[in-house]
Amino acid sequence: LELQKKGHPSSLLKDLAKSENLAVTDLEFAQFLDSSDPLHTFRSEFHYPSVSDLDLGTSTSDCIYMCGQFLGLQPKSTRAMVVQEIDKWAKKGVRGHAHVADKPWVTIELTVKEASAQIVGALPVEVCVMNTLSVNLHVGMLAFYRPTPDRHKIMLEAKAFPSDHFAIQSQIQVHGYDADESMVIVAPRPGEETLRMEDIMQTIEEQGDTIALILFGGVHYYTGQVFDMAQITEAGHKKGCKVAFDLAHAVGNIPLHLHDWNVDFACWCTYKYLNSGPGGISGFFVHERHAHDYSFPRMEGWWGHDLRQRFRMDNVRSLLPGADGFQSSNPPVLMTMCLLASLELIGRTSIEELRAKSIFLTGYLELLLNVFYSKDDPKRKGPYAELVTPDDISQRGAQLSLKFSVPMRKVFDFMTERGVVVDLREPNVMRVAPVPIYNSFEDVHKFISLLGEAFSKLDE
Amino acid sequence: LELQKKGHPSSLLKDLAKSENLAVTDLEFAQFLDSSDPLHTFRSEFHYPSVSDLDLGTSTSDCIYMCGQFLGLQPKSTRAMVVQEIDKWAKKGVRGHAHVADKPWVTIELTVKEASAQIVGALPVEVCVMNTLSVNLHVGMLAFYRPTPDRHKIMLEAKAFPSDHFAIQSQIQVHGYDADESMVIVAPRPGEETLRMEDIMQTIEEQGDTIALILFGGVHYYTGQVFDMAQITEAGHKKGCKVAFDLAHAVGNIPLHLHDWNVDFACWCTYKYLNSGPGGISGFFVHERHAHDYSFPRMEGWWGHDLRQRFRMDNVRSLLPGADGFQSSNPPVLMTMCLLASLELIGRTSIEELRAKSIFLTGYLELLLNVFYSKDDPKRKGPYAELVTPDDISQRGAQLSLKFSVPMRKVFDFMTERGVVVDLREPNVMRVAPVPIYNSFEDVHKFISLLGEAFSKLDE
Ligand SMILES: Cc1ncc(COP(=O)(O)O)c(C=O)c1O
Ligand SMILES: Cc1ncc(COP(=O)(O)O)c(C=O)c1O
Repeated sequence: LELQKKGHPSSLLKDLAKSENLAVTDLEFAQFLDSSDPLHTFRSEFHYPSVSDLDLGTSTSDCIYMCGQFLGLQPKSTRAMVVQEIDKWAKKGVRGHAHVADKPWVTIELTVKEASAQIVGALPVEVCVMNTLSVNLHVGMLAFYRPTPDRHKIMLEAKAFPSDHFAIQSQIQVHGYDADESMVIVAPRPGEETLRMEDIMQTIEEQGDTIALILFGGVHYYTGQVFDMAQITEAGHKKGCKVAFDLAHAVGNIPLHLHDWNVDFACWCTYKYLNSGPGGISGFFVHERHAHDYSFPRMEGWWGHDLRQRFRMDNVRSLLPGADGFQSSNPPVLMTMCLLASLELIGRTSIEELRAKSIFLTGYLELLLNVFYSKDDPKRKGPYAELVTPDDISQRGAQLSLKFSVPMRKVFDFMTERGVVVDLREPNVMRVAPVPIYNSFEDVHKFISLLGEAFSKLDE
Repeated sequence: LELQKKGHPSSLLKDLAKSENLAVTDLEFAQFLDSSDPLHTFRSEFHYPSVSDLDLGTSTSDCIYMCGQFLGLQPKSTRAMVVQEIDKWAKKGVRGHAHVADKPWVTIELTVKEASAQIVGALPVEVCVMNTLSVNLHVGMLAFYRPTPDRHKIMLEAKAFPSDHFAIQSQIQVHGYDADESMVIVAPRPGEETLRMEDIMQTIEEQGDTIALILFGGVHYYTGQVFDMAQITEAGHKKGCKVAFDLAHAVGNIPLHLHDWNVDFACWCTYKYLNSGPGGISGFFVHERHAHDYSFPRMEGWWGHDLRQRFRMDNVRSLLPGADGFQSSNPPVLMTMCLLASLELIGRTSIEELRAKSIFLTGYLELLLNVFYSKDDPKRKGPYAELVTPDDISQRGAQLSLKFSVPMRKVFDFMTERGVVVDLREPNVMRVAPVPIYNSFEDVHKFISLLGEAFSKLDE
């Protein structure tokens, strides 16, 4: 499989099928793509549930799990790595903190630092794994949202994820401002679903002088749209705003260059494309240029202070440089291990390789949707599917958000009963994410077949 | 063993030894106490490390683990309960959230709610298990510390745990006040180690009008002193202050009545006397009278909102009543399971029973220290030990903080090499906590013998 990045994957896939004497819609073509995929073997490194595992039937064949945008699958190495720490606690008690050779807990956060930094395009000093995502939104805002009467606004996208919306709203209130006045929400144009970059830029241009903080999603959870973080950051900085991103749907999904983009802070959960399990630990980024600035207030706790000083217990401030200095508590060891297992696995490939496959895998899903269920195809009749996610590959990651001409819930139930795991998001989309590290082209092909069955059934 | 609560345990223990025709210092007396202890069998429900487990020698006999004030031992049931959720994730993927009969993750926090509430003397609506301790200090302060120019101070104890000190300091700074001016630190009198209640009361009386929040430890981590939370709360409220406690060293150690005491908020870690493992999840209490007040700003996230509303994704605020409404993130499932395993175990006895034993266990430690190593005994020579922790049982829990006439570090090293696990805290104490759920009177007896050996050695 030649993973070229030039051109839209649809046309490349069509060319490839032609050169193999196959139709793009043939199951054989999906199988051909899988056999040419250098990452195909990664699937066997995960616990990939069968249909019967999910209590959706008696079949022992694999389900169609395309729900990494909600919760990633479990690496097979996770369990042993967690159990190892449980057993360390059983055998060593408190001495697991400092009197063991392997992974002493007193510095456990360092085990996941470098790989996390690499995945988001950051220096190690810029990244720390700690807390959970919504908490880290507050950690970042408490440090970087310093409203004044002249500059008190926070700019965010419309239909931001509830946690982000509530976190922003409540931070504004904590500082005594009025959320209605201080939230600048950039919305799609009437009749459109996704944001136009020009509208984002215009908002920054027009209101930037009163915006204290731009806090955007990197990839929109509902539409799957990827925002141009480099450009938003640059435009925001020109106007004197701080610029931050919630990377929940971006990390492990698309390449990130937080350092080069000059982002002020960012945070992400790790249970989606980083496969760290339910309630997984979160990542936090703060740019190097803030790394040695200890002058601004932040949410402080002992763990953010120098290790030796920390146990000197004299309450003399000695914040660690960079992201580490934003820690509060000693970290949850088992959650850190869940992340480490996954990072080690991802470390055997790279975000670039995963992205290269992802472009084709999601492109293939789009192509088949268009071939079979396009609204615009004059020849076809019956239900159709529409893409909410942009067609432009630079504006999307693994996830496609779909709308149907028939009731979404009925399509979903039909497919779930047949072993498809995707999710619905209110009010109106099905989110489908073929995840390059464990999904195959054949998964996509099966998904499309079952969608066809659902449509036929609903069309009766 | 008659666990009477009247009288000092020392005299009761002496009477008991006499009636058994034993000396209080006899090993047989320790063994007699263990055989009369109805909680003695709980020890076998824990992984109690052997000396060789700790790499402190080849002996397979139990170490002397009296370090529950730092990290509690692991219940034997923990591992299976954690692994069960790991396996659920492996088999069910995202469907573990809502499509499983047993412990669906979408409400996983409810599995630990009632038992946690009971342990702190609260109604279920008043308690939620979430985040980690230092984070919850900030959650509480962001909601309840609302400084004004007239009332901007936070009162705390001297030598508060670093996280508490830093958290308070940084919250004051976040709100634009000067920490030096706004921190009211109640210190022991010159030459004394512990606080006098009258001095705490006097500070409230004198400065209460400008104190916005009293945030005290329930049990001081360094001295082991228990503060009279009921009285502090009442006095603070009379002056119009909010009153909160960090219960890290109190929960699972002494009986608490947060509801009856009218405490505004409280938080605690669960890895000490609640045995939930390194980086264990934290508990948060907010009094019922604030349960339905949604008017004040707080650190909001989606998980604090009504479950149905939460997934409606329309960003309409619908905070849950009580402590649940202070949640931000979906909780770390494995950490919740660690706590649940321990709460189930504790549920087979009660805090009252544990406390009854604890009074005698710690009283026995004190008695032997006095008999053998008292500074005030005119007949003895050689090194001595002094109690930093109050002698009054209403002012202490399981932990005794000790000072020695010989270098602390040398005593510690000598004892560690012989399989004793306790800890040192800078500048000058050894913390020793015989924990009633897994420690025995014989452990205390052995500890005393080894302390004697250490003293002899250092006296040479
Ligand atoms: C009294 C007290 N407060 C706060 C903490 C900090 O806890 P964490 O690291 O869980 O936030 C501790 C930890 O031992 C403590 O003893
Ligand atoms: C974009 C985004 N932000 C925030 C969250 C909230 O995450 P958590 O519950 O881990 O705080 C999510 C969860 O899916 C999310 O997708």
